[in-house]
This record gives sequence, C-alpha cells and structure tokens, in this order.
Amino acid sequence: MDKAETRFKMIKERHKKTFLKAIEERKADKQIIPLCRYIAKTKKFFTSSSCAGRIILLDIDSEGNKKEAAFHSKWHRKVKFNELMKEIEKKQNEEELWFKLDSFILHFGSNNLENAKKILEAAGKTGIKRAGIMVAEEGKFIVELIGTQTMALPVKAKGKLLVEEEYLKKILEKANKKLEKNYFQLKKFTGIVKKTIK
Amino acid sequence: MDKAETRFKMIKERHKKTFLKAIEERKADKQIIPLCRYIAKTKKFFTSSSCAGRIILLDIDSEGNKKEAAFHSKWHRKVKFNELMKEIEKKQNEEELWFKLDSFILHFGSNNLENAKKILEAAGKTGIKRAGIMVAEEGKFIVELIGTQTMALPVKAKGKLLVEEEYLKKILEKANKKLEKNYFQLKKFTGIVKKTIK
Repeated sequence: MDKAETRFKMIKERHKKTFLKAIEERKADKQIIPLCRYIAKTKKFFTSSSCAGRIILLDIDSEGNKKEAAFHSKWHRKVKFNELMKEIEKKQNEEELWFKLDSFILHFGSNNLENAKKILEAAGKTGIKRAGIMVAEEGKFIVELIGTQTMALPVKAKGKLLVEEEYLKKILEKANKKLEKNYFQLKKFTGIVKKTIK
Repeated sequence: MDKAETRFKMIKERHKKTFLKAIEERKADKQIIPLCRYIAKTKKFFTSSSCAGRIILLDIDSEGNKKEAAFHSKWHRKVKFNELMKEIEKKQNEEELWFKLDSFILHFGSNNLENAKKILEAAGKTGIKRAGIMVAEEGKFIVELIGTQTMALPVKAKGKLLVEEEYLKKILEKANKKLEKNYFQLKKFTGIVKKTIK
C-alpha cells in the first residue's frame, strides 16, 4: 500500500471513531446519522464534522460578529413558538440576539480525486448547488456540501424585542418550512449516495 | 500542446471575451473588476460568472421559492434608507417581498488541479472559509469562493409592511455594514491573489 493510502486509512479510522463516539454520547444530529452510518461502512469514504441544518438564536456583539460561546439556543429540528419565545425572553442585557436558519453543512473525506468527484456527482444529482473539494492532498480529499435555505435577522437588542410577536410567529413558521425542505434534500441525497457510492 | 491544455485555452478565451464585453456594457460589478482584470491577464486562470456581494429585494411565492424574474431590486453597493423604502413601497399585490444581503460568489477557472489549489490557498490566506473545487475535469477546473456575510427576512406581504420602519432602518444599517466587510475581504483577497498567482 502506498503512502497516500496509508494516510487515508489512518484519517478514515480516526473519523469513524469520532462518529461512533458522537452517536454513543447522543451528540450526533439525528437527521444525518443514516448518511454517516452508511459512509462509515464504505472503504474509500468518511464523514467529518457535519451539521444537518438548524434553527438558532445567536449572540452578536456590537461589531456584528458572533461572540465566543455564541449559541444562545440551537435546535436540529422544528421548533414550537412557545419554545422559541421562552428562549428569547431569557435573554437580557445582551447587545443583540439574532434568529437564524442554517442549512446543512456536510464534510466527506476520500482517498483520491476520482472518489471525491463521486460525492460532487451525487450532490449534483440531488440538486445541491454548493459543493466543492476544499482540501486536495495526497490521501486526503475533503468535499464540502452546503444547502441554500437560509434566514438571518436580529430579534432583540439590549433586552428589548425589535419586532412584534406576530412577526416572530411568521418567521418561525417560515424557518420550520425551510428546515423541512432542508431535511428532505438531505434524505434525497442519502438515497442517491446509497445507490452510487460503495 | 495536449488536449486538456487546448480545451483550457478555448474556455479561457471565451470567458475573457465575456468579461471584456460585460465591462464595456457596464454590466460588471465595480468591486470585482480589478480582480477579474488581473486574472484575465494571467496564463492559467480565468474568472466566470461572479458577484461582488449585494443588497436585494426578492419576490417570493407562497411556497417560499424565488419567483421567476425574482429581483425586485438589487444594489451592488451600500443603499440609502429612502432608496430602499421607495422600492419597498412600489411593491403591491405580490405574495411576499424579502430583504437579503448576499455575500460575494466568485468563480475561477484553471487548467489543472495544482493551479486550482493555488486559488484555494489564496482564499485560505484571506480567511475565506467557503472555498471549493466544484468542477474537476481535464483542462477545466472551477473553484467557487463564497463569503459568509448574510441576512434574509420577509419585509412585506400582500401589500402590507410586516415590520416597523424603525426596524427596517436598523436592518439596512446592518446590511450596509456587512456589505462593507464583504467588500473589504474581496479587496484583501485581490491583494493576495496579485502576490501569489501569476
């Protein structure tokens, strides 16, 4: 076995362990477990830090940057209005609180360019537009896929709501709908991966 | 010259012509012209459809999808509050109008993997996190770079404003600030490209 393949095997083994540990500790997003499980069993692919898509409340400083330990709340599932309001109400004295819907971000590793391209092809077939090889080294090719559903807006500043509750209700409804679409695309992608990547 | 290089030369020539025509017709975003001009002069790189980053008002249908001919307004520069309000007021009878801040999306072509990686390296040095090779074919490697500044929220539905003017003012202020950061990163990247890509 050449150096690149040895390197790949080591990296794959490490990421597989991290994934299995995350499942054990219930830290893995439910919606990407079937995909990650399948990939872990292949010979030439692995997944690394990925997110299934989420609704978050984020602390933002006065410069408009994410603060350290910035997550006020996060959900990898649809959210109920009273859950959201409870979390928003908790927030006092902070500069700013943003509501965000983030699409999935997936990372796949592979041993060579040819196999990395198979992930790009599966993404293309699914209709995922943001897909690219972000690392291309001997024995280590990393592909990143990103969904396009997104929302981002400030909802509270200095302890005061910036919008009416009625608007927040509307926003959440839209975010839940987008999240559903996002998870649907993830499921479609998982199906295509199972057919095309061995 | 081998087949891949011949192919690359043809593609580069075509994109160069498109770029020069866009400049002539004043259709190119002002903020990316210096970058595109520099790249056009190199031997092994070209740029294709790219956007410098923008503030837009977008028509959204009841399913939450972008409508055809969806741009109600777009600006590749900072926007004044009265400009924004004028455009929002124009909108009547439409299902929904969204306010969005989109970061830059840049596309670079190159002849081979080694050169495509130089674009990834320049992106990494600039601090651009979303960078990937989206096409990897003989003589045609396309790298996509995307900024991370983003905002997206509905502002009007069925001819009625969903938020107060004061909130829109705040939103626009934040969007202008993010756009400034976005253009600053683009400028930094252009500087790094000029030093590292010949």
